Amino acid sequence: MTSDSTGPAASYPPALTTISEDPLVRESIVASLVTAITPTESFYVRNHFSVVPAIDADKWRLKVEGMVHQPLELTFDELLSLPSVESVVTLECAGNSRSYLTPPAEGIAFGHGAVSTARWKGVSLAQVLERAGVSEDALEVVFHGADTGEEEEDGVVYSTELPYSRSLPVDTAMRPELLLAYEMNGEPLTPDHGFPIRLLVPRWYGMASVKWLTRIEVVDKPFEGFFQKRRYVFIDEGVEDGPVRMPVTSLKVKSVITSPRHGEVIQPGDFVIRGFAWSGEGEVTVIEVTTDGGRTWSEAKLLGDSNPNAWREWKLPWKATVPGHFIFKVRATDSSGNRQPMSIPWNFRGYANNGIHTLAVEVPSVKK
Amino acid sequence: MTSDSTGPAASYPPALTTISEDPLVRESIVASLVTAITPTESFYVRNHFSVVPAIDADKWRLKVEGMVHQPLELTFDELLSLPSVESVVTLECAGNSRSYLTPPAEGIAFGHGAVSTARWKGVSLAQVLERAGVSEDALEVVFHGADTGEEEEDGVVYSTELPYSRSLPVDTAMRPELLLAYEMNGEPLTPDHGFPIRLLVPRWYGMASVKWLTRIEVVDKPFEGFFQKRRYVFIDEGVEDGPVRMPVTSLKVKSVITSPRHGEVIQPGDFVIRGFAWSGEGEVTVIEVTTDGGRTWSEAKLLGDSNPNAWREWKLPWKATVPGHFIFKVRATDSSGNRQPMSIPWNFRGYANNGIHTLAVEVPSVKK
Repeated sequence: MTSDSTGPAASYPPALTTISEDPLVRESIVASLVTAITPTESFYVRNHFSVVPAIDADKWRLKVEGMVHQPLELTFDELLSLPSVESVVTLECAGNSRSYLTPPAEGIAFGHGAVSTARWKGVSLAQVLERAGVSEDALEVVFHGADTGEEEEDGVVYSTELPYSRSLPVDTAMRPELLLAYEMNGEPLTPDHGFPIRLLVPRWYGMASVKWLTRIEVVDKPFEGFFQKRRYVFIDEGVEDGPVRMPVTSLKVKSVITSPRHGEVIQPGDFVIRGFAWSGEGEVTVIEVTTDGGRTWSEAKLLGDSNPNAWREWKLPWKATVPGHFIFKVRATDSSGNRQPMSIPWNFRGYANNGIHTLAVEVPSVKK
Repeated sequence: MTSDSTGPAASYPPALTTISEDPLVRESIVASLVTAITPTESFYVRNHFSVVPAIDADKWRLKVEGMVHQPLELTFDELLSLPSVESVVTLECAGNSRSYLTPPAEGIAFGHGAVSTARWKGVSLAQVLERAGVSEDALEVVFHGADTGEEEEDGVVYSTELPYSRSLPVDTAMRPELLLAYEMNGEPLTPDHGFPIRLLVPRWYGMASVKWLTRIEVVDKPFEGFFQKRRYVFIDEGVEDGPVRMPVTSLKVKSVITSPRHGEVIQPGDFVIRGFAWSGEGEVTVIEVTTDGGRTWSEAKLLGDSNPNAWREWKLPWKATVPGHFIFKVRATDSSGNRQPMSIPWNFRGYANNGIHTLAVEVPSVKK
């Protein structure tokens, strides 16, 4: 992806931490995110239900229905025969970095590793929707996955047949970067990543990129599904007229340090601090790094080319001269003027935490 | 201790979380600190080594030696025969709240519960030192516990016979509030709390209050023991002339909310927010509480009488009117003008974190 990539994806061993077995949730180990393209076996996984759908691609169909002029039912081969698009896209879970919120928030206790980048191949969603002909009265497009299960909230149990379904505004669904993806890093999708087809919504948090996609439904009313209205919302509560639920949508500007890792011992001499930065709301324009706990900040160099759909590598040379512990932090600014905050205001489910990444390293007084 | 105490200590079940089995480390569950006097079985424990000394009080001796005019060797009965003092004293571990530091710091991952308060009985240390007659050339008083073990730092292993020893400046040692304590909440000390005798240094972090005390040594040079110079120091590092180690000494102003607990569901109506506040550097003068994440702060009422050696209860009425999640925080100010910060600068071993306590509660829309 960039001239500074450190090698082909396939040569790196998987580097995932399992946070939950049921549903399966695994996050990348941040210090192992050494390549701009994350190897598939090191790509974070966030399933919602116990059962990973085992889909026979020959029997799989994608229905496109609802408020369309020409309902479709596409086979996998038909989809593969359509013009394909390749795109490098970063996905980040809305719950990434949740465990760094104060006080603790509800949900899977992600560190900073629920973010990864792959090279995807698929068919333009807009092309398929245009072929079906979206009605002028349509408001949203709903994407239904094959995965179903049970959820509970406020003492209410939602059916065991609750599907993982999410909607997008029609305008968003028609954006050219959205894909019906069938390849990830040059291979068919793995079962955990949505085989045979997943929706890919670049620049949005990962909840929008519905896996195991089987049905696209065009509707003229706001979709009220569990994962649209009960989950993946910021809740403004404690107000007289009752809670206001605002959907989690585009990726907030964010950056991570991938080298060094927290606690690393750095020998005296030259070192290169590295990491990634991304934003769903503009181009990353400035990366600032402190090595003294925030007293002074230096601008890091952005590597490669800007890609609005993916993270960008950055680096900053540093010279370890005197022994001690040093606090490193990084903060990114995007072209819309968003800059990462030190910390974000607490929200009930701990979504979209883009508070700045902080770690400590040690320069020893004697060689370790 | 105050008219607002909610009951006798003995009627509460133990409420400790074990953080480490070897050495034994247990912290109080903050929401269980409901009485101004913590029941002994709920009092935090911070041992340093595997073996808890099993001391026969009949055979135990306390030596007072070094730069004194009259070395002493006191039996337990002799100590008991001296005039006694009773005092309510709060002890807080220097590592309390360590796990709330960003990034993580070295050491036992304490929450906010390594703080407790007991009614102690013992003999004035000054009285014993005066009886021995401290030399005018003396600089420090070293306190040796019967506990020994092994420690490692920077690849150096310190002997398996490393004793837990700590020193105090002579002036500090002579302060009237320091006790050679033999009773805790009306009973002999338990083995975990230093039977038969522990030093008690009110207003300092707990590391100064040496347990299983066997020897007091008056010296004319700065004591250089492991737990004096390698542990319980703030390290100012990364500076040209090498690290500067500043000792951890007096308790920084701090407060905790004991009710509600984080995540508590509060039914609509009247509620009383409660907690404790303390400082080793003056009297707690102001407690401020926010129930809206910090937008507005209200002054809480301090209960009972001020005791420079112990925490003080506080309360603030709150009315839950609308449903939602609410962020509570508390911050204390002392008579020396110290006020708790939102967060403290990181230090390698994560000592003395008095960043403000934050939690979230829920007021349900329907009765839970």
